[in-house]
Formats: sequence, structure tokens, C-alpha cells
Amino acid sequence: MKNKAIIILSGGLDSTTLLYDLVQQRGPENVVALSFNYGSKHNVIELPLAVKSCRKLKVEHVLVDLREIFSHFKSNLLQGGEDIPTGHYEQANMKLTIVPYRNGILLSCAIGLAESIGADTVYYGAHSGDHFIYEDTRPEFIKAFSEAAVLGTMNKIRIEAPYSNMNKASILKRGGELGVDYSLTHTCYSPNEKGESCGRCGSCQERLESFEENKIEDPLVYYNPRVILKNNDKQ
Amino acid sequence: MKNKAIIILSGGLDSTTLLYDLVQQRGPENVVALSFNYGSKHNVIELPLAVKSCRKLKVEHVLVDLREIFSHFKSNLLQGGEDIPTGHYEQANMKLTIVPYRNGILLSCAIGLAESIGADTVYYGAHSGDHFIYEDTRPEFIKAFSEAAVLGTMNKIRIEAPYSNMNKASILKRGGELGVDYSLTHTCYSPNEKGESCGRCGSCQERLESFEENKIEDPLVYYNPRVILKNNDKQ
Repeated sequence: MKNKAIIILSGGLDSTTLLYDLVQQRGPENVVALSFNYGSKHNVIELPLAVKSCRKLKVEHVLVDLREIFSHFKSNLLQGGEDIPTGHYEQANMKLTIVPYRNGILLSCAIGLAESIGADTVYYGAHSGDHFIYEDTRPEFIKAFSEAAVLGTMNKIRIEAPYSNMNKASILKRGGELGVDYSLTHTCYSPNEKGESCGRCGSCQERLESFEENKIEDPLVYYNPRVILKNNDKQ
Repeated sequence: MKNKAIIILSGGLDSTTLLYDLVQQRGPENVVALSFNYGSKHNVIELPLAVKSCRKLKVEHVLVDLREIFSHFKSNLLQGGEDIPTGHYEQANMKLTIVPYRNGILLSCAIGLAESIGADTVYYGAHSGDHFIYEDTRPEFIKAFSEAAVLGTMNKIRIEAPYSNMNKASILKRGGELGVDYSLTHTCYSPNEKGESCGRCGSCQERLESFEENKIEDPLVYYNPRVILKNNDKQ
């Protein structure tokens, strides 16, 4: 009998692809998706999409509200924070989108839930494009955090981030093989009130480049023209 | 200039002693106490005492409500859980008081807050009496978790648990030197509606033994006679 696994599902491209991957590997009855509302500007668009993907795949979905703790933190990504910067992830101003130790907090909560329901592994969709800016997505962080989880639980819960050395274009390629419905994902840090994407933020730029590299069309609606910015145009 | 430090303050004997220790080492202006309501049966008694200790020492106090995530977990320690077992920590039934990965979750939140306010260290009051039952209080867990925190933050936040190799009696001795007001601490897992202690749970038994060993009187009110149970009497 296979044990259950938990996946942290944001409703973004990476974690939604990983959800499909796990369902193929373990069967939907052995996967529990865990989503968090932590008060980010895009949670309100992402979370209903996470619900839809789980419904489509017949996967149990747990939604947890963590807005209170995150309300004490400063980040342009959070509601009440300053505007999201535009341009590529490589630029220093994208550091303003860091939410302090977000992945540590979300992973810890997932480990607690895994221990409670008898799951053996927590999966999350960190990918190589995050590494430059976000300390808590790097392989060495994941390794140390996983060691702590094994030591700190009775069931020796492990953390797996199978996409941590893949870029978004490779993940999208994998998603194509799995038949992922990318109309049920969201990536933009600065959506408009209709939930349409800006095409300008670091997240959108990375997504657009990945679809272009895979020569497929992104099913999302963008409220700006779909342009991949050259370095000179980046703000 | 000294940097700020965060201490996770439950309002129990160990963390309250550590609060006094840090105030002596760093000055009250460089200490921020962080308390969590995670839905335990004793939070309702402990947290107002944590508030009073901070007020007494002129330390900034942040209280965070984490009841929603913990409502998904099973433990006799949580509201809605079964009754707390009686007897010593060494007994297997005390495992029912484990809250899955509690310290991992609380530490992660504290690390996020430390990163947000520019603190360099997170302190918590794990002690050796916890090790047998609670995986997430052991020195090897603290070491791995601290490594993850250093890797996962821009400010390289460290975790320190200076009492992790001390027992409760040694902590109480240290508290005597620091002038800790132990009437503003709570230890019991099964208090009555007046907030009086049972004297029977593993926590109470350890506390009573520590006061006896230090030959001082515990200022708390117990609703059962103060008796240290022999092994034969333990349930």
C-alpha cells in the first residue's frame, strides 16, 4: 500500500504541474493538496484555481488561512505592501518581493499536517529560477530543512522538491507530457481586477519565455501586449 | 550596537526564565517576545501571564493567533482533543500530548518575524526533560533547524536554545539568580476553570520535583495536594 503524500499547491504553474506528476505516480487517493492564504496580492486569484485543479483530478484539498502571522511581515508581495517591481528576477529590485522565510513557514505547517494524517512526504514545487532571489528555495536549504523534518517527527517525514534543479521551461515540457490544464494556473504578481496578467513582472516574463521556448501558447489572458522585455527595457 | 533578538515565550517556567536571562544580557529594548495562541488547552492561562511578565520587564510583546492551522492536527494537548494523561513524561501515554511539529512551526514563524524586524537570533526554551517524548526539542533537531534558518534567510538568522541540555531544576536555579517571578508562570496541562494546577500531569510533576530539589516553594495554587507520585502510583 502506498502512503499518502502532501503537496503544497499555490495554484501556480510549478506546483500545479507537480500535482499532476504526483497523481500519476501515487494515484489521486494518495495525494492531499495543501494551499495557504498568506495574504499575498495574488492569493485571491491563485487559490480558486488550486481548488479547480484538485476537483478536476479528484484530489483532497486543504486550505489554511495564515494571514495573521504574515500580517506582521513586510514585503511588496503582501497586501498593504508597496507596488510589485517590474522586470526580470535577476534584478535587485525583485528582492522586494521576498516574503521573510515564507517557504520555511509553509513547509513546517505541511510537515505538521503530514504527521497528523500519516503522510510520509511533503512535496513542493521550488524550481531553479527562484534560486537567485529566494534563499528558501535553494537545494541546500531544502536539504537542511528536510533533515530537520526527519529529526523532528515521529514518522520521519521527508521533503521532496523534484523540480528544484529544473527551470520553468523544463517544467512546462513535463506538464505537456502530463496533460496539465494551464488555464487553471496563475503566475502574475500584478494582476488586474479581472485576474488578467500584467506580462511585465518577473514572474510573467519567466512564464512567457517558457511558453515561447516550448513553442506553445499560454492560455492565460494578459492585459498588456505579450512582449519579452530586453535587458535595456527593464526597469 | 546590539541587535535585537526574538524569544518564543509560552508563559511557562522555562521560556519565562530565558526571557529574564536575555533581558539581563541584551537589555529590554533589544528583546522582542513572541507568543502564539495555537489552540492548546493551557494557552488561555499561559498567554495572559506572558503579557504580564513582558510588562514587568518592559519588553515588546507580539501575540500571534495560529489556531487555524493547528485545528487540522490531532493531539490531546489541543482544545477538542481527548483528556491529558497523568503521570511522568517517561511514560508512553504522554506521547498523546505531542502536537505534530509544533516547534518547527513556531520557530519558522519566529524566523520570519526576526528577518522582518532585523533581529539576528531566535531563542527558545527547550530543555532536556522534553527530549524523551518530543522529537522537536532535541539538540540534533535544533542544530538542523538552525542550519536551515541560516541558509533560508538574508540576515542569516540563528536559533539558540541555551537551556537544551539543562533540566528544569537547573533552569529554576538559574531563575533564582535572575529574580524570576514564578507566580507569573504556568506549567499544568490540566488546569481547572480557575487556572489552578492539577499537580498530576507530567508537566506538573516535573515542576514540583524541580522546586523540591531547589528547596523553594512553588508560588502557584494546586487543586490537588502537592504530591510527587512514585512510579507505582503512576497511571
